[in-house]
Amino acid sequence: MIDGAAIIVIGNEILTGKVRDANSPYLLRELRALGFPVHRVVVIPDDVDVIAREVRRHSEEFSQVFTSGGVGPTLDDVTFDGICKAFGLELVEDERMARVIREHFGERTTPSHLKMALVPTGARLDFDGRMPWPVVEVENVMVLPGDPGILRKKFESVKERFRRAPWHARRIYTLLEEGDLAPILERLERGHPEVAIGSYPVYEKRDYKVLVTIESKDAADVERAFEDLRRMIPEREIVRAE
Amino acid sequence: MIDGAAIIVIGNEILTGKVRDANSPYLLRELRALGFPVHRVVVIPDDVDVIAREVRRHSEEFSQVFTSGGVGPTLDDVTFDGICKAFGLELVEDERMARVIREHFGERTTPSHLKMALVPTGARLDFDGRMPWPVVEVENVMVLPGDPGILRKKFESVKERFRRAPWHARRIYTLLEEGDLAPILERLERGHPEVAIGSYPVYEKRDYKVLVTIESKDAADVERAFEDLRRMIPEREIVRAE
Repeated sequence: MIDGAAIIVIGNEILTGKVRDANSPYLLRELRALGFPVHRVVVIPDDVDVIAREVRRHSEEFSQVFTSGGVGPTLDDVTFDGICKAFGLELVEDERMARVIREHFGERTTPSHLKMALVPTGARLDFDGRMPWPVVEVENVMVLPGDPGILRKKFESVKERFRRAPWHARRIYTLLEEGDLAPILERLERGHPEVAIGSYPVYEKRDYKVLVTIESKDAADVERAFEDLRRMIPEREIVRAE
Repeated sequence: MIDGAAIIVIGNEILTGKVRDANSPYLLRELRALGFPVHRVVVIPDDVDVIAREVRRHSEEFSQVFTSGGVGPTLDDVTFDGICKAFGLELVEDERMARVIREHFGERTTPSHLKMALVPTGARLDFDGRMPWPVVEVENVMVLPGDPGILRKKFESVKERFRRAPWHARRIYTLLEEGDLAPILERLERGHPEVAIGSYPVYEKRDYKVLVTIESKDAADVERAFEDLRRMIPEREIVRAE
C-alpha cells in the first residue's frame, strides 16, 4: 500500500462540463501545505458500480482516500451505495444523524432528508460540534460533500490529523529555455537523486522563461541542490532565486 | 469497450497543488459541446510505470483517451516513455518532426530539443499546417501537451472528428429544497428513464435553491420530461424555466 492519498471526485455535473471541480484543487493545496502526499485524482460519474470499483481499488492502493460529492438527498446521490458495494456493507440509519436532521429541518423533515442519515455499517461519524453535519469515514475512506463551502468546513475540522513533516522548496526563475536547461537538470538530478526537480516553462510573456523548483522534506538536501543549480546556470540567465 | 473518452492529466505540478489543471475543464466543456461523452478524468504523476498502467487500462476500457502533459524536452517529460511501455512500443525519431524542430530552433537546436522528435513506433502525426507542432496519436490515445494555450490550438485543429449528435437540455430553477424535491425527481425518473436528471443545490444566496437539469440526445424526450416536471412543481416554487 502506498502512503498518501487518492481523491475521488464523484459527479456527472463535473464530467459534463456544467460545474468546474473546485474541491480537488482545494484538497491538493491543503494537503500539500500539510505535508501529506497525494498520488491521484479521479473524476467519475454518479454510478454505483463505478463508485464501488474505484473506491475499492484506490482504498487498496493508497493509505487514504477522500471522496467528494454524491451525499445529498436526491436520487443521483449514490456515493454511500457505492461504498457499501465496495466493502460489502449495508446502509443503516445512524440515530444521532437522524436526530440532527430532524432538529435541523423540524416539521419540514421528509423521508428524503432522512435518507442522509443512512450510512454504511461500521462507518465512523465525527461530530465535532462546530457544525451540525458529521465527517463520515468508512475504512480508510473519508466521505466529503460536493458543495465546496461545506467540504472546506468539514476538512478544516479534521485536517490536523493529516499534518506531516513539511516540504521545503527553492525556486529559480531563469531566462534559459527548456531545451537548453534540460542537460543541466539532468546533471542536477544525477547529483541529487534525493530531491524532486520540477521544470515549468511559461509561454506567455513573463520576465522569465522557465521556473525550476527543487523540493524535499529534507531542508539541507534542498539547499545543496539549490546551490549546485545556481552554479550550473550562468548568472545573467537567472532572473531571481528564492 | 465503452464509447466515449477518458482524460489523463499527467503532471506532478498538478498533484502538488502548484498549478491548477486548466486542461481537463477545457476538454470537458469542448467535448460536451461537441456531443462526445467523457466518462473519466484521472490526474497522475510524471512516472513511467503509472503512466503505462493508466494509459493501458483506460485505452482498453474507453474508445478514446486524451493525455495532457509530459511531452516537453526535460527529464520529467516521460509521457511517451509511458505510452511505449503501455503498448510494447519503442521510441523512434520522426524525421519530419526532427526537421520541424531544427527549423524552429535553428542554430540553437540541442539534443534535448531533438528528444521531442522521438515518438512511439507506429504513432500517427497530424501536421495540419496551422502550427508547426503535430498532434500525435498512438492507438486510441491522443497525446496533447500540458501548456493550456498549445493544447487548445491543437485540440481546435482536430475537434471536428469528435462531433456527434448534440445533447438537448432544459433547466428549471426552483425554490424547493433538495429534500422536498427528491420525491418529485424520483417520480420523474421512473416516468422518464430515458433522460438524465441532474439536481444542483446552491448554498450561497441566490434567487433559487436548486437547479434541475433534464438532458438527452433526443429533444422530444427532453420536452416531455420537462413538461411533466413543470406540472409536478407548484408554480410559485418555479423561479424560471429555460
